[in-house]
Amino acid sequence: MDLNTITSPSFLKTMSNEELESLSQDVRDFLIEKLSVTGGHIGPNLGVVELTLALHKAFNSPEDKFIWDVGHQAYVHKILTGRANQFDTLRQFKGLCGFPKRVESEHDVWEAGHSSTSLSAAMGMAKARDVLGKSNHVVPIIGDGALTGGMALEALNHIGHEKTKMIVILNDNEMSIAPNVGALHNILGKLRTHGSYNKAKDDIEYLMKKIPAVGGKIASTAERVKDSLKYLMVSGAFFEEMGFTYLGPINGHDFEDLEENIKFAKNAEGPVILHVLTKKGKGFKPAELDTVGTWHGTGPYKMETGDFVKSAAKGPSWSGLISETVRTLAREDKRIVAITPAMPVGSKLEGFASEFPDRMIDVGIAEQHAITMAAGMAMDGMKPYVAIYSTFLQRAYDQMLHDVCRQNLNVFLGIDRAGLVGADGETHQGVYDIAFLRHMPNMVIMMPKDENEGQHMVKTAIEYNDGPIALRYPRGNGFGVPLDSELTTIPIGSWEVLEQGTDVAVLTFGTTIPMAMQAAEELKAEGISVEVVNARFIKPLDANMLASLAARQIPLITLEEAVLQGGFGSSVLEHYNEQKLDVPVTRIGIPDEFIEHGDVPELLNDIHISVEDLKKQIKSQLQQATV
Amino acid sequence: MDLNTITSPSFLKTMSNEELESLSQDVRDFLIEKLSVTGGHIGPNLGVVELTLALHKAFNSPEDKFIWDVGHQAYVHKILTGRANQFDTLRQFKGLCGFPKRVESEHDVWEAGHSSTSLSAAMGMAKARDVLGKSNHVVPIIGDGALTGGMALEALNHIGHEKTKMIVILNDNEMSIAPNVGALHNILGKLRTHGSYNKAKDDIEYLMKKIPAVGGKIASTAERVKDSLKYLMVSGAFFEEMGFTYLGPINGHDFEDLEENIKFAKNAEGPVILHVLTKKGKGFKPAELDTVGTWHGTGPYKMETGDFVKSAAKGPSWSGLISETVRTLAREDKRIVAITPAMPVGSKLEGFASEFPDRMIDVGIAEQHAITMAAGMAMDGMKPYVAIYSTFLQRAYDQMLHDVCRQNLNVFLGIDRAGLVGADGETHQGVYDIAFLRHMPNMVIMMPKDENEGQHMVKTAIEYNDGPIALRYPRGNGFGVPLDSELTTIPIGSWEVLEQGTDVAVLTFGTTIPMAMQAAEELKAEGISVEVVNARFIKPLDANMLASLAARQIPLITLEEAVLQGGFGSSVLEHYNEQKLDVPVTRIGIPDEFIEHGDVPELLNDIHISVEDLKKQIKSQLQQATV
Repeated sequence: MDLNTITSPSFLKTMSNEELESLSQDVRDFLIEKLSVTGGHIGPNLGVVELTLALHKAFNSPEDKFIWDVGHQAYVHKILTGRANQFDTLRQFKGLCGFPKRVESEHDVWEAGHSSTSLSAAMGMAKARDVLGKSNHVVPIIGDGALTGGMALEALNHIGHEKTKMIVILNDNEMSIAPNVGALHNILGKLRTHGSYNKAKDDIEYLMKKIPAVGGKIASTAERVKDSLKYLMVSGAFFEEMGFTYLGPINGHDFEDLEENIKFAKNAEGPVILHVLTKKGKGFKPAELDTVGTWHGTGPYKMETGDFVKSAAKGPSWSGLISETVRTLAREDKRIVAITPAMPVGSKLEGFASEFPDRMIDVGIAEQHAITMAAGMAMDGMKPYVAIYSTFLQRAYDQMLHDVCRQNLNVFLGIDRAGLVGADGETHQGVYDIAFLRHMPNMVIMMPKDENEGQHMVKTAIEYNDGPIALRYPRGNGFGVPLDSELTTIPIGSWEVLEQGTDVAVLTFGTTIPMAMQAAEELKAEGISVEVVNARFIKPLDANMLASLAARQIPLITLEEAVLQGGFGSSVLEHYNEQKLDVPVTRIGIPDEFIEHGDVPELLNDIHISVEDLKKQIKSQLQQATV
Repeated sequence: MDLNTITSPSFLKTMSNEELESLSQDVRDFLIEKLSVTGGHIGPNLGVVELTLALHKAFNSPEDKFIWDVGHQAYVHKILTGRANQFDTLRQFKGLCGFPKRVESEHDVWEAGHSSTSLSAAMGMAKARDVLGKSNHVVPIIGDGALTGGMALEALNHIGHEKTKMIVILNDNEMSIAPNVGALHNILGKLRTHGSYNKAKDDIEYLMKKIPAVGGKIASTAERVKDSLKYLMVSGAFFEEMGFTYLGPINGHDFEDLEENIKFAKNAEGPVILHVLTKKGKGFKPAELDTVGTWHGTGPYKMETGDFVKSAAKGPSWSGLISETVRTLAREDKRIVAITPAMPVGSKLEGFASEFPDRMIDVGIAEQHAITMAAGMAMDGMKPYVAIYSTFLQRAYDQMLHDVCRQNLNVFLGIDRAGLVGADGETHQGVYDIAFLRHMPNMVIMMPKDENEGQHMVKTAIEYNDGPIALRYPRGNGFGVPLDSELTTIPIGSWEVLEQGTDVAVLTFGTTIPMAMQAAEELKAEGISVEVVNARFIKPLDANMLASLAARQIPLITLEEAVLQGGFGSSVLEHYNEQKLDVPVTRIGIPDEFIEHGDVPELLNDIHISVEDLKKQIKSQLQQATV
């Protein structure tokens, strides 16, 4: 059928399984074609085609609440709720969001981007329902990877205790972004292979009759044996222990199996877990064959071959550069251990893992544990390197403050995807880490101007043994600058002048340095002399350079791809305020609002962070200074 | 024995159980006496006397690592490691810390104050041990309440998967601070009552022999039945499923039981959980009889009667005032639900709970879940009130940013214990919340000058339906000011002038207002006219008043009991910077360091936040202004 004609999921109600199967094929063809142009989370969405159809047939959205954990697997849901015709704009500026978005549809009742929020949100909605006396269903859909996040486990513990009615869809595809780890993963693995326990019920009853009814002490033991056998009949001991009714495993690509179990779950009392097995990337061979997570989220690709359309990157990926430099230093320094919360591929740690399998730890989606475990290692003499996306580090704020910074431990943070990330949008922008790390005592924060400085910063971080140190680096690739063969350390808190100037100075770091350099270049032609300072240490600041800049009495502009509130520019204001120096400063950065998805240059332009805006600000500053 | 003579725990090695029992009595007498004067965590420490003795006898600290989760139960450990003679200074300025502290002893190998860090830290230390080729034991001691914290569950999942050797002591006293909740608590409850399963082993083997060996399909079922019976023999299905060897339940006050099981655990492979049952407050009747948590941590008391030595509080407790006002409004507004992460007593929500049992939710130690569940409720029309200590809100940074603020949901945060908390010290100071909430878009933050304004702010928060709003209030009691009988709302972002002045203006809020008023009063006598502004909205600022202050061209002083970096004072700097207004501002607040334990006035004095310091700053500002 023509998916563009869908306006509401109600048409599914009368569909036969054969029609649903045919529709599934249409949806898959649509996704494979559309995403080949736009890119997107192809693997997760191909895995949940039948599941999403079955859910929308069985429930009445939006009265019944679908809560998509992480949210990147909601494309099929978007198609079924009337948004097929917007897929050409997927993840583009002002286009269709890659995650649920309330402004797009009344069927999007919860927005996420970070993992493991769905069970807590569902508990909130179920409680609201109960207090308000409603009777709708609440249906969180959570992956096996997301289930290991601490918040999801907290929620499981609470829901199971309160016995709150909800239907949890556990979408088990054996990998979230990378292959999953953890004891829960092992538990699910066992359940997967057991097949349907329910079918064994008769056998078990036969066996139980063979257990003799005996008196005295043994009788109570026999009772316990019978109790124990319940684990077999219901299976899913872990979830049953946690207070849930477990149903599964269910074939997530079989409409009959799905329908039957959802029906049972709707009528069950208390919380139910439907353990649904799906195949990530199903229906698209290159994605089906993926074992490491390459097809989790992608850019454009060729439909026929599955070859990626290469973007014209000049330099190495930032993640690769940093991780490989850590690997090089790990050959000499046995204290170095690499830690990732479920991002071995994204953080390009495969090389490190293959060379140092005993010193590479993937903890799964568990950012809090990753950071405090690193603190424990540092306490006992190791030098843990934690590669973590800026946006996910938000999950470990207290672990950074209470465990790492307070105990002043030598944890080396590689803050990946720092700055705007583009297509993933507002849930993933890495623009808060400076504001939330900067007020933690003992913290050192740096960001390199290019790959060469980046590798020296890795060396600097490894050699630094006075406490925690963070190296921020952006999403994407470097410039392709030559790399020094010998690594050196950079003095902590030292900035460098990249371009001398006499009229105004721009203090900036990382991704916005080229913008400042270009503005300086262009203004030179207009007779304005702009100094560009690489403020590579965001904490501590270079007090000497700030003093000499103040002495020169030229206006300053701070420029950052991070939030203005409590950011780098504010730290410059604070510094001069403490020094009681009156220096004219203009701060450019991200305003007090959430930044949506789109190309990074487009987004920056939209919030007035561009060469043109910078030039305008410089001129305005100079005019003010001469008034 | 004279506990003051102990310099190292090595003397325990040769002690008989009788001698240990006698020593236990000495330790209890010592704690009950000392803490009657200083106050402290009497309940938790009386519960772990035998356990701590048994651990120090069985292991070799500090080579073997004891990691005390939360840390407030380490008093016995402190006595055994040579610190008995410092107990007169417990929790006092420059005195013995109430938590493990590395500068005090080499036996304190990990510091904590927040819950649920021990398993992650232990995993880090165990990994460090394995990578470095050492063979020491790693022994985290964690309570049943702390186990429900998300990070502890993340760690459990990881440790069980990797099968890392460690001995987890699960100190199960059925309550952490308040009675525990959650499915895990139910699981532990079942284990508690089962008694020792190991004793049933013979019976089970007898029964298993009765299961016939049959062929075909039933045979495989029989195999599974036998598998299932393993749950019985080893018991602790939940922990076994998670990959741990479970031993228990163990009588935590019986040296023989403890010794036998620790010995077994030391020789076991992989991770072991020792499920130790203890009685909180054991040996001190008033504490033993406590069922709600009154004797968790206390001030001074009378040893003979257990009566608390009342402090001369003028007004109602802040927690009580705020919670009771919420309760009053909840009678009219059915949207209101109260949520606490394990602090129903501390947050004084008992009244609310008894009046609205269906609208009161204690989620246990699970701050992340508490906040995102609140977000889910707000999404569906409720007005959740989350009472949470400032320091514990740190655990939910991402939940505030990604779930609440990004979706702009009507969550009402009661930030309890905001500001310095005193005796609990650096792990508990509530001085970061402004710096970490202020850069979240959509956030409103306020703090009242007294109880009357506090109750109006509760009304304001309940009536506010444009997004999240936080009401900060300090630890301790109010001033006893008269309370208006009718509640009114305060315009969002409006400040008020408390004292008119012409020479200088102090902008401050909450606890530091009396300091500013007193300085103004004292300076009046010296001919200096100080304006005092109640900056009760920390976000948004009162732009009109800031503009009129700037127009008057008087110097400003910002004063806050919170961190300076990214704090309220910085937001004033940012505001004037954005407005391109050149206003002389001096910022007074907490410097970039961790603030230890002690009386709050002593601590404030130490960091130059006092009437005297403020007067000095005012004079210095005025001198500068006239130069």
